Amino acid sequence: MVGLKLVSKCLDIDAGKKPIVILNKEDAEELGVNPLDRINIFLKNRKFACIVNISKDFVKSGEIALYKDVWSELGIKEGEIIEVKRREKILSKKFIRKKIDGGKIPYEGMKEIVKDLINNNLNDLEIASFITALHIRGISLDEIVSLSKAMLESGKKISFNKKIVCDKHSLGGVPGDKTTLLVVPIIASCNLTIPKTSSRAITSPAGTADRMEVLAPVSLRAEEMKKVVEKTNGCIVWGGALDLAPADDLFIRIEQPLDLDPLYIPSIMSKKKAVSTTHLVLDIPTGRGAKVKTFGEAYEIGSDFIRVSKMLGIKTVCGITFGEQPIGYCVGPALEAREALEALINKKEPADLIDKACSLAGLLLELVGKGNKNIAYKCVLSGKAEKKLREIIKEQGGNPKIKPEDIEIGDKKVDIISQKNGIVMWIKNQEIAEIAKIAGAPKDKGAGIKLHVKIGNKVKKNQKILTIYSEKSLKLNEAEKYVKEVEPVVIIEKLSKNMLIRKLEEEKYEKSFVLER
Amino acid sequence: MVGLKLVSKCLDIDAGKKPIVILNKEDAEELGVNPLDRINIFLKNRKFACIVNISKDFVKSGEIALYKDVWSELGIKEGEIIEVKRREKILSKKFIRKKIDGGKIPYEGMKEIVKDLINNNLNDLEIASFITALHIRGISLDEIVSLSKAMLESGKKISFNKKIVCDKHSLGGVPGDKTTLLVVPIIASCNLTIPKTSSRAITSPAGTADRMEVLAPVSLRAEEMKKVVEKTNGCIVWGGALDLAPADDLFIRIEQPLDLDPLYIPSIMSKKKAVSTTHLVLDIPTGRGAKVKTFGEAYEIGSDFIRVSKMLGIKTVCGITFGEQPIGYCVGPALEAREALEALINKKEPADLIDKACSLAGLLLELVGKGNKNIAYKCVLSGKAEKKLREIIKEQGGNPKIKPEDIEIGDKKVDIISQKNGIVMWIKNQEIAEIAKIAGAPKDKGAGIKLHVKIGNKVKKNQKILTIYSEKSLKLNEAEKYVKEVEPVVIIEKLSKNMLIRKLEEEKYEKSFVLER
Repeated sequence: MVGLKLVSKCLDIDAGKKPIVILNKEDAEELGVNPLDRINIFLKNRKFACIVNISKDFVKSGEIALYKDVWSELGIKEGEIIEVKRREKILSKKFIRKKIDGGKIPYEGMKEIVKDLINNNLNDLEIASFITALHIRGISLDEIVSLSKAMLESGKKISFNKKIVCDKHSLGGVPGDKTTLLVVPIIASCNLTIPKTSSRAITSPAGTADRMEVLAPVSLRAEEMKKVVEKTNGCIVWGGALDLAPADDLFIRIEQPLDLDPLYIPSIMSKKKAVSTTHLVLDIPTGRGAKVKTFGEAYEIGSDFIRVSKMLGIKTVCGITFGEQPIGYCVGPALEAREALEALINKKEPADLIDKACSLAGLLLELVGKGNKNIAYKCVLSGKAEKKLREIIKEQGGNPKIKPEDIEIGDKKVDIISQKNGIVMWIKNQEIAEIAKIAGAPKDKGAGIKLHVKIGNKVKKNQKILTIYSEKSLKLNEAEKYVKEVEPVVIIEKLSKNMLIRKLEEEKYEKSFVLER
Repeated sequence: MVGLKLVSKCLDIDAGKKPIVILNKEDAEELGVNPLDRINIFLKNRKFACIVNISKDFVKSGEIALYKDVWSELGIKEGEIIEVKRREKILSKKFIRKKIDGGKIPYEGMKEIVKDLINNNLNDLEIASFITALHIRGISLDEIVSLSKAMLESGKKISFNKKIVCDKHSLGGVPGDKTTLLVVPIIASCNLTIPKTSSRAITSPAGTADRMEVLAPVSLRAEEMKKVVEKTNGCIVWGGALDLAPADDLFIRIEQPLDLDPLYIPSIMSKKKAVSTTHLVLDIPTGRGAKVKTFGEAYEIGSDFIRVSKMLGIKTVCGITFGEQPIGYCVGPALEAREALEALINKKEPADLIDKACSLAGLLLELVGKGNKNIAYKCVLSGKAEKKLREIIKEQGGNPKIKPEDIEIGDKKVDIISQKNGIVMWIKNQEIAEIAKIAGAPKDKGAGIKLHVKIGNKVKKNQKILTIYSEKSLKLNEAEKYVKEVEPVVIIEKLSKNMLIRKLEEEKYEKSFVLER
């Protein structure tokens, strides 16, 4: 492939670590590249893959404009002559095509894909196509293991000088799930190592990292995180700053806008291996409003996790938990951090949160042979768990003496009132999450929802059923409007005795054309 | 959804009709958008969808940088205040998801998809995902018809005051296929209307538009094209300037880098309907080195085309043609234009080109009840076809008196010599195309290949088997190197009598893990 020698034009634009260059249309045609294609820049014996944008006027033929991400990385000066070539044929495309066409990708294929992903050789369209194909064709257990390994090898690894390293993970999908803020201190207070890395919210109103950030900094580097764990046995930090699985972040960047998530097992397992996890409790919240709807599904997913874990050398126990309504009463980073802290202080409420935390911690203690749910509960009752959380907060750089009332909540609020007497039949998880997001969560940490009722509670007309908190009036108004649209808390006056729900009849649907095929 | 009011910053960068804006990272988070997501700009009661890029430094919070494509389109001035909102939920995503999950998309779904595609509401990832899903799940006949209609409705239509409007199309895949340059004048010289729109090369070394452009301008606007047809009964123009199927161009932009092409039937049929075609001959080149490999496949594809055509009100006849080697001897825009012109002048050679053109023209004449292959051949022999081509060249703005030797061919050339005595067994279509591309085609019009032999010819050691032409020495060298790698013309010394080709044995392959599943 013949290359071009072009004169650099350094733009003062950064694209958030995306190495973008702009070529003139003529030169792009000469190279045979289209927008979003990859080209390689050759400079001082280095090869660097860049993303092509094309311009008719701004960049003259013979020039190449470089975003800051490119020229600062490579130390290119204005007016320097750079050689560019079209990306060569890459091996990973062959493996992606194999999956598209229904085949299986072997370990070396996964390695190629991860390598090209990280080196910017795969363009976003190709990644989107790969993810769609994985969603449709499915990913086999051996593919999951191969990909987990390939992803693991591409990132950093953090080891602890311990035989047992515990971890906890939730498949998520239930709003207000601040369980990790209790499980980590319980386990750590039992003298077990639990270096918990967590994510920020992707589509939810709060991720564990967002919740913990209300109490202490979470963007720790690997060495800092290690120190915290060595001192306290535990931590709750944001995984994103640790560079454990750079490939995973790049996949998620494409998966999220597509609303497809075929890589959740490799994504989770590679990050667990990266922090040297040996024993894992996996929470599978199950219920109609959760990600996993039925026990059958939960059983299948859990079994897959257990098998893959075993192949990767991790002992995993799964807990299928009740996921039909939010955990506790609060949704939104600050509200949830406050509720978790309160729970450890008062040791009783919210009962569902404490039970869930002790159940999962108990499963983990059983797995490592160091106790059970009772032991976990004793850690809460004795105050050891609260003390441990404060230790962790301190070592991560927060205020260990923080009181629940110190945590700031959005000062704009509105109460939502029941229109009738009755019983709470149903709380819609997704709508609750959406309301909190419209109110500003997770970006505005003080935004969110406080429920005043849970499923089964009796309510009276004009009783408060939930309160929305926000930092901005405009967002509060939008959230209030949305509540009226979606009826997040369903109240019925009495249980129906009518067993026939609906009659189905032949549809009066005319086909527009009749096919012979 | 709450919007943001941002101050505009007009950049002097165009992105080739892609409406790109750059937001500060903070504001992007506030809006909840990621790179490549869509936002809507609201200005003077207009709503305009833009593509998000994100920057940390270049754009301050509260600002929005606009590419030229955006501010010139909307008439935005530097420092103006613009309201932006995140793209609302779009209906088309639901239909795309349906296809991903194995469902069928109804007509209204296709309409939504095409609408959002054209209005820039779908991002490239979503389009890539859709195309991958169509490739994997397949597209049913009614979906093809729905999508063809939706695409047709989104573009311009050109009508002629004629009962019969003929057209010719080839599925392509065989290099050197300049048949259209003969079929159009043959049909037009029979007093039938044939407004042929064609494409430029996408992945091939020459598209029909590239070939014709050597003889006359092809970027005609709709009114200009209509005039040419009214005067001469025919034309050979580039479809891209006519705005017949804007949706198709947007699909192709994503299909091409993915090397997936699930939309070829709607793509072709919508453009035929747009020029009011009533009768169509479809060339299906079939052979091991062509797109369509077997007669079985050709039959299936042809039947699909005939059914879809019928539903859209077009009468179609398909010709399955020999596609195992290039048509004629020349590959590359100028070389092919010259070869086509020579064929019409000398009326004999290349025999395969003349036969193919007359066969397809004959099928079309039979379809409209105005003749057959013999009549078509007479148009060539009598010189009517040549005369008609020159009329069309003249009306499109070219030189009607052009002689083959006037057409400039790349002045750098190299002959490739046979290493042995033998018979030509095989000419590799894809490799021939690739060599011509490396030599510079289609961008360098004079670049390409002239074959000196075809399948079945005897060759002597040191005899020329092909000549590569190029406009640049560097490209010529690269092309020559590539020839040595790929052996595009396979010569065997004698036909083998050994019937056993290869022995297959159990592979010595150890599985890395055994699965219980």
